[in-house]
Amino acid sequence: MTTLRIAEIFGPTIQGEGALIGEPTLFVRAGGCDYRCSWCDSLHAVDSAYRHTWAPMSSEEVWTELRRLSGDRPLTISLSGGNPAIQDFGPLIALGRAAGYRFACETQGSVARPWFGDLDTLVLSPKPPSSGEQVDWGAFAKCVAAGHSARSTVMKIVIFDRADYDWAKDAHARHPDLPLYLQPGNPEVDPEVPVDPQGLADRLGWLTDTAMADNWFAPRILPQLHVLIWGNKRGV
Amino acid sequence: MTTLRIAEIFGPTIQGEGALIGEPTLFVRAGGCDYRCSWCDSLHAVDSAYRHTWAPMSSEEVWTELRRLSGDRPLTISLSGGNPAIQDFGPLIALGRAAGYRFACETQGSVARPWFGDLDTLVLSPKPPSSGEQVDWGAFAKCVAAGHSARSTVMKIVIFDRADYDWAKDAHARHPDLPLYLQPGNPEVDPEVPVDPQGLADRLGWLTDTAMADNWFAPRILPQLHVLIWGNKRGV
Repeated sequence: MTTLRIAEIFGPTIQGEGALIGEPTLFVRAGGCDYRCSWCDSLHAVDSAYRHTWAPMSSEEVWTELRRLSGDRPLTISLSGGNPAIQDFGPLIALGRAAGYRFACETQGSVARPWFGDLDTLVLSPKPPSSGEQVDWGAFAKCVAAGHSARSTVMKIVIFDRADYDWAKDAHARHPDLPLYLQPGNPEVDPEVPVDPQGLADRLGWLTDTAMADNWFAPRILPQLHVLIWGNKRGV
Repeated sequence: MTTLRIAEIFGPTIQGEGALIGEPTLFVRAGGCDYRCSWCDSLHAVDSAYRHTWAPMSSEEVWTELRRLSGDRPLTISLSGGNPAIQDFGPLIALGRAAGYRFACETQGSVARPWFGDLDTLVLSPKPPSSGEQVDWGAFAKCVAAGHSARSTVMKIVIFDRADYDWAKDAHARHPDLPLYLQPGNPEVDPEVPVDPQGLADRLGWLTDTAMADNWFAPRILPQLHVLIWGNKRGV
């Protein structure tokens, strides 16, 4: 039996970003990640220093908790992390789909999994230069291929600066068929420090102005609504 | 030849709300409306006192301006108002579609038009009690029927208070097959007064909390990004 390492399960609340923005969603945040992005906003699900806070749970136990949180109403379940693709979420997806739940998964695209094909929405988020990580585009292409039978596969890129923006254009050129979502990076990741909504608005305005002035109309440009509403608080 | 009354043509900029949120879009705001919503944020396209500012334009003239603004790149064109359905946008849609542009139309659903069926996205926004208007659900159903060959038809409802929220549940029950979008109302509509982004965040949080506490998971809940970024300035 697969044992999963789970940092958080919460919801329902709205999906704050990307293709399903605004959609009532249950979140399963997996513990553990093969990346260490400089601006990571979920270090509690990434850094091994937090490993003792990750609950070892069977797929059935996760499923029981999701049913409880949703009152058995079939919602969208978002698998995030950390990188959920370093664990086996196939059995959980099978349990949920059988009950009419829909699944999305957010992953950087470094590890391909057969269960990507069972998702409703596969969100691949290659990390731009500001992250300090380097994308393996061969591995990324394997993720796209693994998701071929998902209902939709999209690309989402976080943009902190002009170098990230230029990089996103190259990334899009590699996979022009994937619907593309850009979101301004959030430099305010301390859960104890309130987020400045005007700063968030300004970053969204900057990214919009940059793309429009550049006549680049391929991406949809969206903020992180959860940060706007709740700052960096966890579990919302 | 049809002469259109046009309050504004602007863009490209991102669509700030609803199903196409974040999508680079050209906007055609039609002058004239059969409603007088108490909280209307586009009175300059509604009130006859502004009629002298509405340009009489042929469909070809509007199309020429849209081509200029987009540099001939086929984008999404949003027809809004006012109520665009009181005018004949069929010829403009035909011109644009032949060149690969996509069309969305935002209307309250009081007047059905054959050209609804030629749209990519028909957004029907029935007005809740706080508007002071009364929805004619028979006319609304005719709009849904007229849009049957549109790529998608969605319902969007602005929510100012609990009465609007309860009304939205009834509206959804009448048309459960239409994907539903809720957005918090914006009480700050004076273009000269800066919008308070924290207030916008609080209203979005209230609406999200209300729906989640009520276990109502049908709608997607989204803010107005253009208000967040630009306040109530026109032409952005």
